[in-house]
Amino acid sequence: MFYLDHAAATPVSDKALAAMTPYFAADFFNPSAPYLPAVEVRKIYEAAKDDIASRFGGKGTDLIITAGATESINLAFTAVTSTDSNAVLISAVEHPSVIANAKKFPKFGTIKVDQYGQIILSDLAAKITPRTQLISVCLASSELGTLQPISEIAQLIRTERQRRLQAGDKTPIYLHCDASQGVGLVDIKVSRLGVDLLTINSGKIYGPKGIGALWHAHQVKLRPIVVGGGQEMGLRSGTENVPAVIGFAAAIKEADRHLASERKRLQKLRDLLRRELSNNPSIKFLGHPKCQLVNFLPISIPGLDAERLIFKLEQHEVYVSTGAACAARKGVKSPALSAIGLSTEQITGSLRLTLGKLNDEKTIKQVAKIILDVIVAEQERIK
Amino acid sequence: MFYLDHAAATPVSDKALAAMTPYFAADFFNPSAPYLPAVEVRKIYEAAKDDIASRFGGKGTDLIITAGATESINLAFTAVTSTDSNAVLISAVEHPSVIANAKKFPKFGTIKVDQYGQIILSDLAAKITPRTQLISVCLASSELGTLQPISEIAQLIRTERQRRLQAGDKTPIYLHCDASQGVGLVDIKVSRLGVDLLTINSGKIYGPKGIGALWHAHQVKLRPIVVGGGQEMGLRSGTENVPAVIGFAAAIKEADRHLASERKRLQKLRDLLRRELSNNPSIKFLGHPKCQLVNFLPISIPGLDAERLIFKLEQHEVYVSTGAACAARKGVKSPALSAIGLSTEQITGSLRLTLGKLNDEKTIKQVAKIILDVIVAEQERIK
Repeated sequence: MFYLDHAAATPVSDKALAAMTPYFAADFFNPSAPYLPAVEVRKIYEAAKDDIASRFGGKGTDLIITAGATESINLAFTAVTSTDSNAVLISAVEHPSVIANAKKFPKFGTIKVDQYGQIILSDLAAKITPRTQLISVCLASSELGTLQPISEIAQLIRTERQRRLQAGDKTPIYLHCDASQGVGLVDIKVSRLGVDLLTINSGKIYGPKGIGALWHAHQVKLRPIVVGGGQEMGLRSGTENVPAVIGFAAAIKEADRHLASERKRLQKLRDLLRRELSNNPSIKFLGHPKCQLVNFLPISIPGLDAERLIFKLEQHEVYVSTGAACAARKGVKSPALSAIGLSTEQITGSLRLTLGKLNDEKTIKQVAKIILDVIVAEQERIK
Repeated sequence: MFYLDHAAATPVSDKALAAMTPYFAADFFNPSAPYLPAVEVRKIYEAAKDDIASRFGGKGTDLIITAGATESINLAFTAVTSTDSNAVLISAVEHPSVIANAKKFPKFGTIKVDQYGQIILSDLAAKITPRTQLISVCLASSELGTLQPISEIAQLIRTERQRRLQAGDKTPIYLHCDASQGVGLVDIKVSRLGVDLLTINSGKIYGPKGIGALWHAHQVKLRPIVVGGGQEMGLRSGTENVPAVIGFAAAIKEADRHLASERKRLQKLRDLLRRELSNNPSIKFLGHPKCQLVNFLPISIPGLDAERLIFKLEQHEVYVSTGAACAARKGVKSPALSAIGLSTEQITGSLRLTLGKLNDEKTIKQVAKIILDVIVAEQERIK
């Protein structure tokens, strides 16, 4: 198997699975129960949350556990207190869940991106109005891997916040960053980025699926989406998913420990794959040439049909996707690829290759050859 | 260890864990991805959903996977289209999450219960108004185990539906049943119960935590709480938690297979525990003498402090709780126990003993003796 879709899903690592295992059957207690073994489980659960939050420079008490990035994003959008239809700004390369949440504000603004998918700061600056309450920009686009200038965005927000303060305007303005892509590849610290809300998830960083978190700066007031027993400081009710949180913490710890070496290793592999694929000059490489996640290699072969390529590659056990998995399944034309100015033909011929733990130098060379052969065969076929 | 809190949490069974395991690392694919192994995972995921739904006489396509019963309950309440503050009726013995959702409708009605915690049907009949849209009654109270007359409630709703139809009134009226307690102990079929919405969960039936489902009759229109990639028929977005759903399905299958024998076994154990505890005449048994989940034995020892008893019992590795775990942690006086007419003294002295797989005849006899001894010691102490 040649798995080149690490941005869609990753296998749970041995360490994460081993960390989770005792909490399925041995220490299965409900953390809200009053007796000692349950109280012990609560302590371990809270410690895991502290552990997760501390990797991003935050506190466990400011971390709300969710069922994944999508729920975290939904929760982040509850920070908007206004019903103004234009209270929200998002970049043109956001994940479908950010777009779906922005649509709750019918006149939400979209920040333009350049040909590499990086937002244009002057466009953002021009679009911030006194009514803007939330700006949601991903750490890295899930289709292009292009890194966004988060700390520069935060600077613009600080300026606007300062202006409001001086004008006696108490309307809040927050920066939410969806870091679904990038944990384990970029050193993410909330204070350095200057974000008020940070979405992270587990299922794409070798932790279990079905678990994620939203970190929020202490002053940000959120409203619960799911009410009930009052778990997660009243912001997300339901019996705590103890094993998954322990697994999530273990996965983040592992990612953190190997960040520098894994970055280096993946960059080398990605550059190798890029060099190999460059042998076919019709392959266009997408995303930012410098500011791109080191494991991303989105490409476009104009004139070819990506869905057909996926089918052909699958016969050689090469697994790649077209843009975001969610969008792909519904046959929707990618807004992100349109936003960077690709033609319909270029979008139709685009594939997203994302590397990770399941790849090494040997398999990359093999897979490059298969991809080149499949592309040539397709190009020959439609000549 | 003597674990008498199966209503709060259960260990994941060997079978459920074994069923889940391949989907953590081997078959980890994102079910929305386009290539074959991912498509296979999607098929298995959908089959697991069909399997879960079919146990309740429903279809997988009418089942929305959630992060647990609390989220399911929140989703069920989105069936209410009206903003009428009195559109909702709930019983007086509901779980905190049902109460929290009812409170979104400030004038929601509470259906009275008798001394055993069973709803009074005439009170419900009197409280249904032309504006009522949702009636939410648990299958069995999580504090008392008292079974509710769900099919009789459904009959009242059908009558009201008929009246509305004849009056040309298109206001919908639905019955939601929170069956968080009772799966694996009661044969639950949506058509026989006559419910429109059914909440089930995994973490209390020897399946993994962090997963649950809401079944809905096809005509019930729900609104998503979590929007994004459009998974779960657009009603609950986020990458599917494949291993947890597989584990959930395995747990339900196992519960279903052993339903008759486990019912019998637990009833025998519960009756044995009850007989043993009857040796102390100050112990009052709560809940319905006949219509009660066979694993429930809620008791009250007026004059004693349940929290102190829990602490004393814990020293003998006997683990019991006071009412619902969520309420217990927050030190809230149980509305359910108040509703059945208990005095503050009786509520303060109440414990919930719930049996399950971790109990057998030998340990029940041992634990009965410990409980009796601890109670007598406490009664002596405060004399």
